[in-house]
Amino acid sequence: MPLADDLAGLPLVDQHCHPVVLDPLDRPAFELLLTEAHERGPEGTSELDSQAGLAVRRWCAPALGLPPHAAAEEYLARRAALGPDEAARRLLGACGAVDLLVDTGLSHPGLCSPGRLGEHAGARVHEITRIEAVVEEIAASGVDASGLGAAVADALAARTAGSVGFKTIAAYRTGLDLPASPPAAAEVRRAADRWLHTGAAGGRSRLDEPVLIAHAVHACLRLGLPLQVHTGFGDPDLDLHRADPSLLVPLLRALPPEAGPVVLLHCYPYHRQAAYLAHAFPRVALDLGLAINHVGVRAAAVVAETLELAPFGSVLHATDGFALPELHHLGSVLFRRALARVLESWLADDALTADDALRYAGMIGAGNARRVYGLPAEAGSP
Amino acid sequence: MPLADDLAGLPLVDQHCHPVVLDPLDRPAFELLLTEAHERGPEGTSELDSQAGLAVRRWCAPALGLPPHAAAEEYLARRAALGPDEAARRLLGACGAVDLLVDTGLSHPGLCSPGRLGEHAGARVHEITRIEAVVEEIAASGVDASGLGAAVADALAARTAGSVGFKTIAAYRTGLDLPASPPAAAEVRRAADRWLHTGAAGGRSRLDEPVLIAHAVHACLRLGLPLQVHTGFGDPDLDLHRADPSLLVPLLRALPPEAGPVVLLHCYPYHRQAAYLAHAFPRVALDLGLAINHVGVRAAAVVAETLELAPFGSVLHATDGFALPELHHLGSVLFRRALARVLESWLADDALTADDALRYAGMIGAGNARRVYGLPAEAGSP
Amino acid sequence: MPLADDLAGLPLVDQHCHPVVLDPLDRPAFELLLTEAHERGPEGTSELDSQAGLAVRRWCAPALGLPPHAAAEEYLARRAALGPDEAARRLLGACGAVDLLVDTGLSHPGLCSPGRLGEHAGARVHEITRIEAVVEEIAASGVDASGLGAAVADALAARTAGSVGFKTIAAYRTGLDLPASPPAAAEVRRAADRWLHTGAAGGRSRLDEPVLIAHAVHACLRLGLPLQVHTGFGDPDLDLHRADPSLLVPLLRALPPEAGPVVLLHCYPYHRQAAYLAHAFPRVALDLGLAINHVGVRAAAVVAETLELAPFGSVLHATDGFALPELHHLGSVLFRRALARVLESWLADDALTADDALRYAGMIGAGNARRVYGLPAEAGSP
Repeated sequence: MPLADDLAGLPLVDQHCHPVVLDPLDRPAFELLLTEAHERGPEGTSELDSQAGLAVRRWCAPALGLPPHAAAEEYLARRAALGPDEAARRLLGACGAVDLLVDTGLSHPGLCSPGRLGEHAGARVHEITRIEAVVEEIAASGVDASGLGAAVADALAARTAGSVGFKTIAAYRTGLDLPASPPAAAEVRRAADRWLHTGAAGGRSRLDEPVLIAHAVHACLRLGLPLQVHTGFGDPDLDLHRADPSLLVPLLRALPPEAGPVVLLHCYPYHRQAAYLAHAFPRVALDLGLAINHVGVRAAAVVAETLELAPFGSVLHATDGFALPELHHLGSVLFRRALARVLESWLADDALTADDALRYAGMIGAGNARRVYGLPAEAGSP
Repeated sequence: MPLADDLAGLPLVDQHCHPVVLDPLDRPAFELLLTEAHERGPEGTSELDSQAGLAVRRWCAPALGLPPHAAAEEYLARRAALGPDEAARRLLGACGAVDLLVDTGLSHPGLCSPGRLGEHAGARVHEITRIEAVVEEIAASGVDASGLGAAVADALAARTAGSVGFKTIAAYRTGLDLPASPPAAAEVRRAADRWLHTGAAGGRSRLDEPVLIAHAVHACLRLGLPLQVHTGFGDPDLDLHRADPSLLVPLLRALPPEAGPVVLLHCYPYHRQAAYLAHAFPRVALDLGLAINHVGVRAAAVVAETLELAPFGSVLHATDGFALPELHHLGSVLFRRALARVLESWLADDALTADDALRYAGMIGAGNARRVYGLPAEAGSP
Repeated sequence: MPLADDLAGLPLVDQHCHPVVLDPLDRPAFELLLTEAHERGPEGTSELDSQAGLAVRRWCAPALGLPPHAAAEEYLARRAALGPDEAARRLLGACGAVDLLVDTGLSHPGLCSPGRLGEHAGARVHEITRIEAVVEEIAASGVDASGLGAAVADALAARTAGSVGFKTIAAYRTGLDLPASPPAAAEVRRAADRWLHTGAAGGRSRLDEPVLIAHAVHACLRLGLPLQVHTGFGDPDLDLHRADPSLLVPLLRALPPEAGPVVLLHCYPYHRQAAYLAHAFPRVALDLGLAINHVGVRAAAVVAETLELAPFGSVLHATDGFALPELHHLGSVLFRRALARVLESWLADDALTADDALRYAGMIGAGNARRVYGLPAEAGSP
């Protein structure tokens, strides 16, 4: 596949990822981080018996100097021998990303700083602000119910200085059937009162109050920055069917004129629904982060399904890599191969020209994200 | 693909389409008609960067005498030079349709008459009556709430004289969770009162009253003609998840004995659900109109998924072409190629005989629609 | 495909099937049993014009000594000439199953005993107890409302002696949005009172009381045996969208520590959702029974989609064969071919080694089911 060669060197914008853990990991800890599950599988099973496990052996093993398909034990021994820091440097460095948009709102023991992630990846880092974390921080600061709504709006506005976009995990907390209009101030006050006196009492607490989430989402929309929305699968905290992006239609239909792009993250297994939204609502964009690294050899099928209805200017690259630099690495390698595979098959069907194919690869790999987030061109590019 | 040659000449029944615009179109107007969106994409994007855009350049360009993959500007210049009428004649004439079932209930500036569409296509035209438009016309005529229900039933019955079927866009107005039984007369009267005194006051208005839509749907079912139901994606007026055809199950389970076929239109991305309904409920048929022209090179994948559970006697051809004759053309070319591709792959797997393949192609392209709508055989056929 | 040869001889555990009818069947009866529909299709159609019909002609015809693709009439004549008993012996014997898990709770005129099924298949038989049937039997025995809850729990506990697992058809009766916690005793008593005095009055009746179904499901979960859950498509009694397995998330998140595996049956067209559940919740397993025999030549596509997110240790083989031994036969032949096709394509992509492929085939064909149900190794295996 000559196109695969072209795409292997394409500079990428990873529009959604997280820092990595640079501490040593034993096999159980590694396996658990390779899955969205919160607990290990039953006796006699392994998290490495999965697409992600196969892909680690196939693609990460060579990045650490092993032959493809090295056994899991061999891979983990090599990773430990190199040291997790050097392993991360190799895995991240080989991603070929020039810009990383990093969600800084998800904490986990041992996660490195965004800056360290960028150094290892050899990429510029841009911050994505998770809005639920902002609300939780404000609640923890001791604001009272009557002041919470305005404090949230102010804090979000203040974050536009250092962030290239916002992110909401409403899918995890209340589901994606968000209201089309912002809740009224009195409603926000009552919700704040409810939340601060129950769940949030006594310090920082999980924001699961629907009205407050809606308030924060609408506050973001008025600020004009891109808003990333977790959709589709994730960890077991999420009710999958409530994360169907098609539930967003009432909100999308009523976007205020000043709203920026709405970027649907992950999307799988609702990626065709997400692609439709990008088709019907021109301010919607989407990525297949998390999906591509977890479906492994099947990534081309998922990419192809997404490119049925999604305009080619609406699809972005992301890895959603988290904790394991293997996930960033796979998100990059598998994305390049999948996109090349899909475009090659279209060329074989005489559905487009080779120039078209290269242009769309450049858009999806980086150009669309530069437009959506207003990122500067890559250093050294003409 | 020898089968592709056979299918290239197959006479088609397009069981759901619309008239076209025969006025000149500038590039922005053309691009907007090529998408289901209501507004153009952001600066730096083009609606032609999509499967439909690629397919126009690949398949419509040669129909207008240009090489395949002509640039968009070149295509639009050629279209303008020929004149929209001549361009439409070429694009529609090359569809190879012998019968068109035309939904006459959707108005748009510049749409030609159904008769003109048929002349350009060289095909017979049959009318499909959109039931929401009938209700809206009756409301505009000044009927009062106590008479609306009966007037609707009478008007629908009167339309059976000139129509081969009805169509409902309940998916756009109230969602597809229609009641299994017709609403009682008193309930219809109250709903009519509500609707006429609010939304519908002052002339023709959008029918979005669930009870009145249910009344009209059940009135159609009692008339025995096929009832087309919009399902799946469409323009942004629609809440996608409320257009999932599986919501129709309670209605389908309770179909009265006199009901005719229920024909699910479009279906994507719920085409597997629609195919299941055709499997479980023998009076259900379906098409992939709108989907096939918009997914372009991916049409074969969608056809194949549909032909997993759908009985081969339940699948119909449609383009859902609207306004741009390019959409009719692509709906025809891409359908022929996709069906040939799917059947060829089954032949390669030794899953059926070549005779089976040709028989199923003939059924899906035309025969099933002739049975469902009671259409006469094509002129000149034995 | 050398792997296809290996898989053709793989001993299978069919983890969910039903007995067969050994009486003569005329063509209408045969066609009706080949579909999930409750009634025959319209004049001019045949249930054999379907993937299942093609697969019968392709795969069952040779098992009865006819050439592949024999005409339907020829096939039915041969089946009648052999006699249904001999035909069943040939079709079931060629499945290559060594263990059958048989749901004994679905009655149908003419169904043979589980033991007879096992003899014809040359396989050991294990019982799966359908919990709704247990509740209905207890109701028919004359228990009063205050005693029903405890009697159900006792009866289910008693069935653990002779059963390797339970099965619920809650999807058919109330939908899969089951409560995360068991209903309180008083709630069960009130529900029993309601149900016994309406639906269930006067003898055995259909259990459709949500609280009683939840009570029985939670009683099973406390017993630690695997619980099979019907999900996805089935006959027209089912509201498809209420059978989406993702509705189970609240229940799965709150599984008590003593609960055994939860095995999702069928899953199609929600098999990607089911695969996600198996990924996120390590006690969840799944099969593609019913789907594989009905989608025919498309089985490989469905298997591949499932193996995107499902850990390879979570996928089980099942035919869901019912009444027609053809369905067991197709469920086996098509499964072997589909799995071989998928694994071959991964090998061609260099995504795993040949040893990996064989190991995963053995797990999915039999090993995973042995682990989930605690089945003994096959007779004669080392």
